[in-house]
Amino acid sequence: MGVTAAKGFRAAGVTAGIKASGTPDLALVVNDGPSLAAAGVFTFNRVKAAPVLWSEQVLKGGRVSAVVLNSGGANACTGPLGFQDTHATAEKVAEELKLNAGEVAVASTGLIGVRLPMDVLLPGVTLAAGELSATGGEAAAIAIKTTDTVHKTAQVTSPAGWTVGGMAKGAGMLAPSLATMLVVLTTDADLDAAALDAALRGATRTTFDRIDSDGCASTNDTVLLLASAASGVVPDEAEFAEAVRTVSADLARQLIADAEGASKDIRIDVTGAATEEEAVDVARTISRNNLLKCAIHGEDPNWGRVLAAIGTTTATFDPNELDVAINGVWVCRNGSVGEDRDLVDMAGREVVITAHLNAGEASASLWTNDLTADYVHENSAYST
Amino acid sequence: MGVTAAKGFRAAGVTAGIKASGTPDLALVVNDGPSLAAAGVFTFNRVKAAPVLWSEQVLKGGRVSAVVLNSGGANACTGPLGFQDTHATAEKVAEELKLNAGEVAVASTGLIGVRLPMDVLLPGVTLAAGELSATGGEAAAIAIKTTDTVHKTAQVTSPAGWTVGGMAKGAGMLAPSLATMLVVLTTDADLDAAALDAALRGATRTTFDRIDSDGCASTNDTVLLLASAASGVVPDEAEFAEAVRTVSADLARQLIADAEGASKDIRIDVTGAATEEEAVDVARTISRNNLLKCAIHGEDPNWGRVLAAIGTTTATFDPNELDVAINGVWVCRNGSVGEDRDLVDMAGREVVITAHLNAGEASASLWTNDLTADYVHENSAYST
Repeated sequence: MGVTAAKGFRAAGVTAGIKASGTPDLALVVNDGPSLAAAGVFTFNRVKAAPVLWSEQVLKGGRVSAVVLNSGGANACTGPLGFQDTHATAEKVAEELKLNAGEVAVASTGLIGVRLPMDVLLPGVTLAAGELSATGGEAAAIAIKTTDTVHKTAQVTSPAGWTVGGMAKGAGMLAPSLATMLVVLTTDADLDAAALDAALRGATRTTFDRIDSDGCASTNDTVLLLASAASGVVPDEAEFAEAVRTVSADLARQLIADAEGASKDIRIDVTGAATEEEAVDVARTISRNNLLKCAIHGEDPNWGRVLAAIGTTTATFDPNELDVAINGVWVCRNGSVGEDRDLVDMAGREVVITAHLNAGEASASLWTNDLTADYVHENSAYST
Repeated sequence: MGVTAAKGFRAAGVTAGIKASGTPDLALVVNDGPSLAAAGVFTFNRVKAAPVLWSEQVLKGGRVSAVVLNSGGANACTGPLGFQDTHATAEKVAEELKLNAGEVAVASTGLIGVRLPMDVLLPGVTLAAGELSATGGEAAAIAIKTTDTVHKTAQVTSPAGWTVGGMAKGAGMLAPSLATMLVVLTTDADLDAAALDAALRGATRTTFDRIDSDGCASTNDTVLLLASAASGVVPDEAEFAEAVRTVSADLARQLIADAEGASKDIRIDVTGAATEEEAVDVARTISRNNLLKCAIHGEDPNWGRVLAAIGTTTATFDPNELDVAINGVWVCRNGSVGEDRDLVDMAGREVVITAHLNAGEASASLWTNDLTADYVHENSAYST
């Protein structure tokens, strides 16, 4: 049920006609309150799409009454006219639902550098407004897909009577800090915008920020958390933060599992680091090594490429004290040959690479995927 | 003629039997003087192969009488025993040629994490010593190939009577600062080690440091410059520096042209940058964007991916003032849609991407290549 798992939310997903394929391409999520508290996290990319610039402003007010999302066009690098298109979209939602446009967040995904077809998008908003329902979460999740092969939802319900649910899209350009993704999380718990912001940033830091499919950062990444307070329950903040983290981790894992062209999901565990920051830096560097990603695709436990990647970082370590395990077999000990590489079984989809730096007590995990010919095909023909 | 184009040098390339394929795998370059002045530049990777650790020590003395290079094994991540293998190789060269082992540089390339087969390598040194000749430059260039499809040599002769020549290998792991490469440059000009070092560092900075095939830095990168002074001519330093730069640029261009699986050679020109450092940073970031590299492979002038890459840097620019041309067509103006993308002809092998930052007067160029299914195939099966 995703974004409609929590009470107080309605959603819809419709085919506006933005995509040539004729598949659903416009989603609407509405918060019926009583609270409209919200928080958001956006791409760190300095080239930001018009909807990101718009929604960043909306979120400064800490209130969101509705989110309109479209696939089929990113509305990025479209200049002042592209920004006007985003503005007009929010105004249309406000008009249909009798809301304040300044509280309507907008998110877009698709090709960069192409204007949105407003002649079909705006009627699509009207259509979606008419289809809003408390069971529309799945339709909304379907409508935001681009090259995703499946739609992604998740939810957690607390014994205390509140729920956190969400939906995500993203299969390519999963990236440095937020992946290419649009994520909407909803809850019927009663929290103010500041508490939501703290919970969302805490969750994002160790979930969406710890997946890195191909190192490319989107211009459109958006993660929103909306609270309706419809359950009437003020949650324990620690329990709520953990619930947001659980839903985020679930969605992040689904994103990696559906990464473009991937045949292996790779978890990189860096242990024995001097600091968590260094552990993340090492994990991210390993995750972006194309040679290693190709080797994993070929089920080749090529630990030398792991060491070569670690060697390009500034993290604290002695090259002669590095240990590396692949799926539990310590193929590298003390920076040199360890256990027999033939003992490594890489037949499964999930591969775990453990890099022990022997430099401290900190650790971090990050998910990535292999590099495949399918990735090349999908991304060399994407715009044609 | 490569390394034997300059007077005072002999070289050989033989099949020692290190490679299972039975192709040449051991090269020897000898400086017969009268001078033995030399300079070297090595990988910035902190995980350094045994021959790099050895040769860095040799070069501290500023004198090199011979260089022994092998393909078929990198001797990286092989521990203290691997270092002993490098030492033994240098001693063998010294013994065969009556030299000081402390003036014999060693370079290796091939798989990481595997010991070298010293039982065939050492007899190979004897064989190579017996085949040394003043016309052996080509055989040496052939013997250092790994996945290279062609061997690479270059030379420049000054009207003043001296020559700079060289050979290079490298087709994969072309990287952050030095690419995966072994390069030996020779000259019969008369310069001391300090002058050679200045010329080599100056040349490397704008040639081997400005190619980046796949962002992966090797554990073995080595660039050496040996001077015999056999011409008897003390060169004009500026002219000599320019000659070293010309030979280095020629070899670097050959490396990119032979990058693993590539179908397009891509030059990235960043102009209008605030500083040269920022121009290089932007160029390198663009060159490592897998999505863009796939698009170029598909002959898709996807300028949005150029902007998305620029946006992840910390360089000085305003997103609304970025201009991007692909093969001379300014498809992006002021951060938005520019000339018709259908005007871009990408049929040729060479593609030029120009990113104008409108932030200053500095510029830099960097070469990379596209990302292809062939790259994936070659690197997923490399060690098997």
